[in-house]
Amino acid sequence: MSLHWWQGACQPSDRVARSKAEARQQQLTKPTGSLGRLEHIAIHLAALQGRERPGLEKLWIAIFAGDHGVVAEGVSAYPQAVTGQMLANFVGGGAAISVLARELDAALEVIDLGTAEPLTQLPGVRHLHVGAGTQNFAREPAMTLAQALICLEAGRDSIERARSAGCDLFVGGEMGIGNTTAAAALACWLLECPASELAGPGTGLDPAGVAHKARVIDAALALHRQRLDGPLEALLHLGGFEIAALVGAYVAAAQQGVVVLVDGFICSVAALLAVRLNPGCRDWLLFAHHGAEPGHVRVLQALGAEPLLELGLRLGEGSGAALAVPLLRMACALHGQMATFAEAAVAEKPA
Amino acid sequence: MSLHWWQGACQPSDRVARSKAEARQQQLTKPTGSLGRLEHIAIHLAALQGRERPGLEKLWIAIFAGDHGVVAEGVSAYPQAVTGQMLANFVGGGAAISVLARELDAALEVIDLGTAEPLTQLPGVRHLHVGAGTQNFAREPAMTLAQALICLEAGRDSIERARSAGCDLFVGGEMGIGNTTAAAALACWLLECPASELAGPGTGLDPAGVAHKARVIDAALALHRQRLDGPLEALLHLGGFEIAALVGAYVAAAQQGVVVLVDGFICSVAALLAVRLNPGCRDWLLFAHHGAEPGHVRVLQALGAEPLLELGLRLGEGSGAALAVPLLRMACALHGQMATFAEAAVAEKPA
Repeated sequence: MSLHWWQGACQPSDRVARSKAEARQQQLTKPTGSLGRLEHIAIHLAALQGRERPGLEKLWIAIFAGDHGVVAEGVSAYPQAVTGQMLANFVGGGAAISVLARELDAALEVIDLGTAEPLTQLPGVRHLHVGAGTQNFAREPAMTLAQALICLEAGRDSIERARSAGCDLFVGGEMGIGNTTAAAALACWLLECPASELAGPGTGLDPAGVAHKARVIDAALALHRQRLDGPLEALLHLGGFEIAALVGAYVAAAQQGVVVLVDGFICSVAALLAVRLNPGCRDWLLFAHHGAEPGHVRVLQALGAEPLLELGLRLGEGSGAALAVPLLRMACALHGQMATFAEAAVAEKPA
Repeated sequence: MSLHWWQGACQPSDRVARSKAEARQQQLTKPTGSLGRLEHIAIHLAALQGRERPGLEKLWIAIFAGDHGVVAEGVSAYPQAVTGQMLANFVGGGAAISVLARELDAALEVIDLGTAEPLTQLPGVRHLHVGAGTQNFAREPAMTLAQALICLEAGRDSIERARSAGCDLFVGGEMGIGNTTAAAALACWLLECPASELAGPGTGLDPAGVAHKARVIDAALALHRQRLDGPLEALLHLGGFEIAALVGAYVAAAQQGVVVLVDGFICSVAALLAVRLNPGCRDWLLFAHHGAEPGHVRVLQALGAEPLLELGLRLGEGSGAALAVPLLRMACALHGQMATFAEAAVAEKPA
């Protein structure tokens, strides 16, 4: 069997650039370490980008949307029609991520992988028609292998468009009524723990709804158990089209040398799947925030991630990642533009 | 005795604007509460600014600098000459806050309240010559009442310039070798606790240095105890010129209706003093970050503050507050620009 594309090598980080960036940090006019996490971020970005002074000027935001058959089990507070309605809102400029993309001067693309009721062509949306949403994973596999492969490639294609546009930072977002259920099911498989520990309210379930969601997930895990013998199998049995596309995007970004800022719970589950498929991609993934969904912290711990923000966010759409972008840009600006002790004639050594 | 200016009324918040902003948040195309703290911030800013859709377009950053006589006790890792050298770096564009001010398109003013070795005129710096630094508070009061009044007014004057320039957001920063010692001493008085609980490494003391710093503070508190019968007396016995200026700025901002974003430990101590002098100013103070200095968390707790960031920062200069400004601006953009359910024809009610 030939290698799948996502098993190909990721871009290595540059030790020389890292060393130069570390040395530069020591020379900037501030007490050593006083910019905290921002110093480490600048050095890490220098190593990834292979230059002493990294920069993140052009941001690419891709929103992947898809519907979920598992909503037939009553696991979401919102009707499934909202997925399509929000696609129109993304391109219409009224969604949270649309506002943030404007504020950040980012390119925003919207990819419809497949909604329950197929949509007429929406100007500005890429409709891929992978299926009329996934199947109900409480009863059967969420998608076929062929569908999973198309979705993974859809993520890779977005990274290629981002690179062609000269973008050096990628934010993936997701939209799909029911997708916290799919993400929690995948997290249970990835972390080997029961759904009661990871299922959360999503867009607004009450405690009884969360308990029901957990039972649906546990039953599905039991149903599929014998087939779940690797991350790809878990993805196609339990996942969503948009989650698969995020996995493909994260791996491809690392292969093509584009820095990724990962959004919330669903994106972090996709990131953990990407790392299981290709551990070399971990270095390229920065994490934006601790979200409000209870499973998020556990997934972040498994990734060894230290997110930048903790603001109680649980919107998705890539919005939490977008909110953290200015911190990355300012870390680069500080690293690249501050004067050294010598340049500013400031006494360097403690008295 | 006539009232001091800092006892004058602060601007009230606008209940009608708050109600309108709360209602608007419920109508935006997202699950209720899914933007977490950013929703509360937008509503709070609406109440402060008296309009349903608040905005923070023009940012004013003022750096207050002064030297501290207490460095004679060996409480800082850096030589006192650094205060003046950094003043030149601020206006020269090479300091962290200079870089951030450019990134944020902010006005930056630099105010020298008094360095140990008086500086020749630096272009772009306002030299106020309040004194050749404070006196050593381990032996005598840090400043006279007259000096404290001049510094408080210097802060108020900065707010007046900010308002004249049309600024709607104020960040105060500080620079002064030794000023974490003065701030810790004030915090001990404000919180009624021993210096061992609040003194920290500042710009880079080792544990023995921190222990010495705490002993110096405790001895000074014992020396001045009988005179410390109010926040103004504490400020002039233990404070610094730049801390007094920040206190004046914070109170004046609240009196004149300018939103404040408070930086790290030293600024938070000034904020707590401002609130003790005039409790009405608390509403106008937003808090940027949990810094690395150990006393900071305790001061934030006393203020009931929930800062936006926690990045291990300990630079000062207003840098931590500057880093949080984009979050405030994006909170306003989201609140003001997102579509409502009706505008976007998105299903509002849970299924």
